[in-house]
Amino acid sequence: MTLISDTPKPPYYAVIFTSIRTKGENGYSYMAEKMEKLASKQPGFLGVESARVSLGITVSYWSDIESIKNWKAQKLGYDKWYSALKVRVSKVERDYGFE
Amino acid sequence: MTLISDTPKPPYYAVIFTSIRTKGENGYSYMAEKMEKLASKQPGFLGVESARVSLGITVSYWSDIESIKNWKAQKLGYDKWYSALKVRVSKVERDYGFE
Repeated sequence: MTLISDTPKPPYYAVIFTSIRTKGENGYSYMAEKMEKLASKQPGFLGVESARVSLGITVSYWSDIESIKNWKAQKLGYDKWYSALKVRVSKVERDYGFE
Repeated sequence: MTLISDTPKPPYYAVIFTSIRTKGENGYSYMAEKMEKLASKQPGFLGVESARVSLGITVSYWSDIESIKNWKAQKLGYDKWYSALKVRVSKVERDYGFE
């Protein structure tokens, strides 16, 4: 098991979620864990990677754009947890790496 | 100034670099800072976002695929700094967010 998602050969999709948190917990950890669990049960879900210092980056991977649209239906009141956020939906065309 | 890159309207490109560091410094900070400075001077460069806990995620944004290919010429001996890494080149098709 590794922290880097074991994604299939491209093409597939990546949702790049970058955010800055608000002050205070406000149930953030609970929400974050629940969102990740729910995402992993969605059709088309391929994996998720997260890191946060001041800036948080979560990248989730999906087999197709329809799966992302379905998943976006789960959006909630994000302004409770984030003071700024940006979501970028992108199509992975190539990849490489090592382990 | 924000930690979230002020990117233009899609389409543009995102390079998603996820990695796990090796033990030891090995000049990592110097390399990381230098790479970021060099990238920011490349044609087509739009911005970069980074976060690291156990997993590190750096997403750099580019106006076109040719700029990425030119920048990749800068690749070095990554195994000195990373025990695992994955690079995904993707085309951002849609975005949304708030600040």
